[in-house]
Amino acid sequence: MSVMSNVVNRIAWDEKGLVPVIAQDANSGNVLMFAWMNREALEQTLILKRAVYFSRSRNRLWFKGEESGHVQHVKAVRMDCDQDVLLLLVEQVGGIACHTGRNNCFFEEYDWDKQDWHVVAPVLKNPDDIYKS
Amino acid sequence: MSVMSNVVNRIAWDEKGLVPVIAQDANSGNVLMFAWMNREALEQTLILKRAVYFSRSRNRLWFKGEESGHVQHVKAVRMDCDQDVLLLLVEQVGGIACHTGRNNCFFEEYDWDKQDWHVVAPVLKNPDDIYKS
Repeated sequence: MSVMSNVVNRIAWDEKGLVPVIAQDANSGNVLMFAWMNREALEQTLILKRAVYFSRSRNRLWFKGEESGHVQHVKAVRMDCDQDVLLLLVEQVGGIACHTGRNNCFFEEYDWDKQDWHVVAPVLKNPDDIYKS
Repeated sequence: MSVMSNVVNRIAWDEKGLVPVIAQDANSGNVLMFAWMNREALEQTLILKRAVYFSRSRNRLWFKGEESGHVQHVKAVRMDCDQDVLLLLVEQVGGIACHTGRNNCFFEEYDWDKQDWHVVAPVLKNPDDIYKS
């Protein structure tokens, strides 16, 4: 199975050949994380129906869950009005998307009274138990 | 009222002084749009409790709704684990976030059978009626 080039060519890839990607839990609606894809990552995501990102820090494809087991099964891939952002609707294996062991990465919230950030979501699993050596 | 610098300094601003921002409807959970902020945009957002982005195409602050009236009232501002992405929970005035007149910008979805994108959300208001000259 291959991905037709017209699908990937619709995307307005940025100057680095990347597109921003938002992953949302298809069931809870929680925004889980934000990452990037290159062409190959999108193709692999569409073929495998599993989230594959491009890791800018490691400069390689990142098969989400490859170390943690916290795979994201992709139920839908949506594109925005400028064709330069993607939204994935996913089923999050283990209910943990964040490397800190939380459901999602957006766990600090601004407190208008204290005028500072504060943590609003619990650690569900110790990262040391997620990433065993 | 001013925004304490420690709040803005927590953000890992990119090489252009920007941070990606996801806007999510606080009630429906729909991901509405994706945009960028610079320091001033974030400060104005926290002060006004209204979404203020930085428009890269116009190279200036973009007070969301300034032309369309489709203001976003900000209920919460969250920061991710790397401090380099923000998530806004907003009340979307008019129920329309997208300049195409749709609820949100992510209205094209990949169809695995047809292997192509297709539109999955209706136009709620004619853009000609939104952006009157």
